[in-house]
Amino acid sequence: MSQRGRFITLEGGEGVGKSTNLALVADWLETRGIEVVRTREPGGTARTEAIRDLLLDPDVAEPLDDDAELLLVFAARAQHLASKIRPALARGAWVVCDRFTDATFAYQGGGRGIAASRISALEAFVQQGLQPDLTLLLDMPMQAAQRRLQGRLEHNGAQRDRFERERGEFFEAVRRAYLDRAASAPERIAVIDASADLATVQHRLLAHLETRVAAWR
Amino acid sequence: MSQRGRFITLEGGEGVGKSTNLALVADWLETRGIEVVRTREPGGTARTEAIRDLLLDPDVAEPLDDDAELLLVFAARAQHLASKIRPALARGAWVVCDRFTDATFAYQGGGRGIAASRISALEAFVQQGLQPDLTLLLDMPMQAAQRRLQGRLEHNGAQRDRFERERGEFFEAVRRAYLDRAASAPERIAVIDASADLATVQHRLLAHLETRVAAWR
Ligand SMILES: Nc1ncnc2c1ncn2[C@@H]1O[C@H](COP(=O)(O)OP(=O)(O)OP(=O)(O)O)[C@@H](O)[C@H]1O
Ligand SMILES: Nc1ncnc2c1ncn2[C@@H]1O[C@H](COP(=O)(O)OP(=O)(O)OP(=O)(O)O)[C@@H](O)[C@H]1O
Ligand SMILES: [Mg+2]
Ligand SMILES: [Mg+2]
Repeated sequence: MSQRGRFITLEGGEGVGKSTNLALVADWLETRGIEVVRTREPGGTARTEAIRDLLLDPDVAEPLDDDAELLLVFAARAQHLASKIRPALARGAWVVCDRFTDATFAYQGGGRGIAASRISALEAFVQQGLQPDLTLLLDMPMQAAQRRLQGRLEHNGAQRDRFERERGEFFEAVRRAYLDRAASAPERIAVIDASADLATVQHRLLAHLETRVAAWR
Repeated sequence: MSQRGRFITLEGGEGVGKSTNLALVADWLETRGIEVVRTREPGGTARTEAIRDLLLDPDVAEPLDDDAELLLVFAARAQHLASKIRPALARGAWVVCDRFTDATFAYQGGGRGIAASRISALEAFVQQGLQPDLTLLLDMPMQAAQRRLQGRLEHNGAQRDRFERERGEFFEAVRRAYLDRAASAPERIAVIDASADLATVQHRLLAHLETRVAAWR
């Protein structure tokens, strides 16, 4: 168990730069000779990407029940842990994951209003104590992040998914829930101001990472 | 709440005659002027039928984790309750459902070996106390039921799904778990010997139903 790889997650609302910075973190670790597995939630495997599709499907004729959404998220997580994350950590690889359970507390908790105690119960059920070693929370005002995404949406011509259709107050609640969670686990969750230009954000992020990795070795 | 409709489930292993007899039960109730909603689990709505497809998909490259399977079953159940079962019962319709939570105790509990206490925790989480008013458990030796299905498989040329690929001992465990559950809730679960010819099984089933319905009215 002492030889196992490290588990790093990137968190934050829509458009804060999680995917962009995941590549930076993974590349930085690989340069140091570490085997890195890049993944995301919900998703990361064939079966869990199929669950992701169900979660994002904006079928308006049959609204998705909040508890069903929460259970689908944890079903995907159980599968992701069993078929990808735990095997990678066990062989010593490091896992860098775009969203994990903090996102559940933020979106299904803060956003949908499900009690944190009900989410914690499922977290314990599925994770059996496993937690990320480090979580990089990219934080910035929702409006500015939305402007970043606007460019991407216009560029791709992609339909908005079930979450992207939510209103501003949903995303404000998501941001608050993320910050509350960071305040309750400051040793694990590093809050990074993501509103600056990309070079500045990357500099802040690597500074955190470097300190943390140095302490682990 | 006293005006709400009744919730009747049909249970049993593969090929015991659940679908065949669901039609009989529903028709019998309709003849008595009752509004009946026929449904099944996993499934019953567009979103839950999509979850059913994930559960039955025999993708051998990525085996489905037992906890993921269990959580998918309850995600589908939460959705089914919210979008179909509870609204029907609330307006006074009766719901007749092909499999429900007893099947989870039998398949994921007995078959897969998940502890009943972990299943009960999710049952409480999702159902918030809701239970079927009557469960008709069709019981018969696994081998004889397999022979009935053999005919259907040859007829349809259908691929075996993830559960139908299981071995004999899996289905023996499913049957035992069903009977254990019936023994622990005899006032709700009626065990019906389903090994006789169809006319005899239907006669037994309607006798149970008639007594029960008479007591409710
Ligand atoms: N610091 C930054 N300054 C300006 N633009 C940025 C910055 N970081 C990322 N971007 C751009 O903002 C957009 C959103 O970034 P990215 O896709 O990485 O966000 P995300 O958090 O992964 O979004 P989603 O929640 O939709 O997955 C991209 O077009 C990206 O190039
Ligand atoms: N009592 C009976 N005697 C003989 N054949 C029967 C009897 N009941 C049902 N059958 C036949 O057995 C086959 C299986 O029945 P049915 O499809 O109703 O079972 P099921 O429990 O719904 O199966 P599954 O678990 O696959 O959904 C069908 O071909 C049906 O016509
Ligand atoms: Mg992204
Ligand atoms: Mg059937």
